Amino acid sequence: MTTTPARQRGRGHDPESVLHTAVAVFNERGYDGTSMEDLARALGMTKSAIYYHVPGKEQLLARALDRALDGLFSMVDDSMATSGPAIARLEWVVRRSVSILVERLPYVTLLLRVRGNSATEQHALERRRQFDRFVSGLVKEAAAEGHVRPDVDPALVTRLLFGAVNSITEWYQPSRGGSAEDLADAIVKIAFDGLRTR
Amino acid sequence: MTTTPARQRGRGHDPESVLHTAVAVFNERGYDGTSMEDLARALGMTKSAIYYHVPGKEQLLARALDRALDGLFSMVDDSMATSGPAIARLEWVVRRSVSILVERLPYVTLLLRVRGNSATEQHALERRRQFDRFVSGLVKEAAAEGHVRPDVDPALVTRLLFGAVNSITEWYQPSRGGSAEDLADAIVKIAFDGLRTR
Repeated sequence: MTTTPARQRGRGHDPESVLHTAVAVFNERGYDGTSMEDLARALGMTKSAIYYHVPGKEQLLARALDRALDGLFSMVDDSMATSGPAIARLEWVVRRSVSILVERLPYVTLLLRVRGNSATEQHALERRRQFDRFVSGLVKEAAAEGHVRPDVDPALVTRLLFGAVNSITEWYQPSRGGSAEDLADAIVKIAFDGLRTR
Repeated sequence: MTTTPARQRGRGHDPESVLHTAVAVFNERGYDGTSMEDLARALGMTKSAIYYHVPGKEQLLARALDRALDGLFSMVDDSMATSGPAIARLEWVVRRSVSILVERLPYVTLLLRVRGNSATEQHALERRRQFDRFVSGLVKEAAAEGHVRPDVDPALVTRLLFGAVNSITEWYQPSRGGSAEDLADAIVKIAFDGLRTR
């Protein structure tokens, strides 16, 4: 009789693998379209075994969104983002964002689909806005230091830069795509130096 | 007794306003999450009145996606895209794409969320890929003519350019955003000439 509780807790299902599978299901079916039954089926666990790991679906979402956001916020206090000319710091942030996105692809994909339908989603959107302000601040500093063209609004620059970076979640295929470094190189070349030959 | 059929056909509901409302509901609830009941409620019509206008939900989706795609494809044969240096044609296509996106915002928003879950969605994805090949062709020509840097893959350039352009659907607010022209100017400045001051 000792095997039952172990199976019900989901033998071979550590919290990490539960989160990993849940995020895959959320991305495939949409978070709102995913039921605990769907998660149980995908995990090969009973619903009560999932509840052993997490209080519910929204906590899985919260953990997943934190996984993406913590990656982005790890940059904010990094010395690469806090010292040196702002344009170099901005370039580092763009490159590092691409790496984080590729490393944490399913988590960032999920984050980018969040529309604010719950307190968890609202919180994630607020953190995204905070991160955007951090990037806009760098653009503004770089313009003040004379290294970024002053004729485009820093908030708009941030949106367009991250529009290009975030689009990676739409088309990148880890199996056949180039490396994160190649992607980052291309984005930095185009956005910082332009497509046009000099 | 003559008023009943008129009401059931949806008095005041021409096909255009039915499509307009349906697209708003699809964008809000997701296409898969929208039932004919949801549409009937949003339109203030009975389901049978909707069926007077269209055979079903998927036809509304098809018409909406065509609205977005026909806009993009209207560029392909335009003389602005077929004559002159490729870099000027590419720049025109980027500018015109921004205008079309802003003019047809809900339709393009819907198009960008399509994942290929039905024949209609597969068809729309195939047309998007065709449009991408048209743009990549321009990038390739412009590189061959020596006006675009040759060290970035044209397909990747297309994806990143349209990553920035398409991100407009995520954050643009017609009520307080700048004009389509301001947006297009910013994208062209950044992508063609770069953020960095010379």
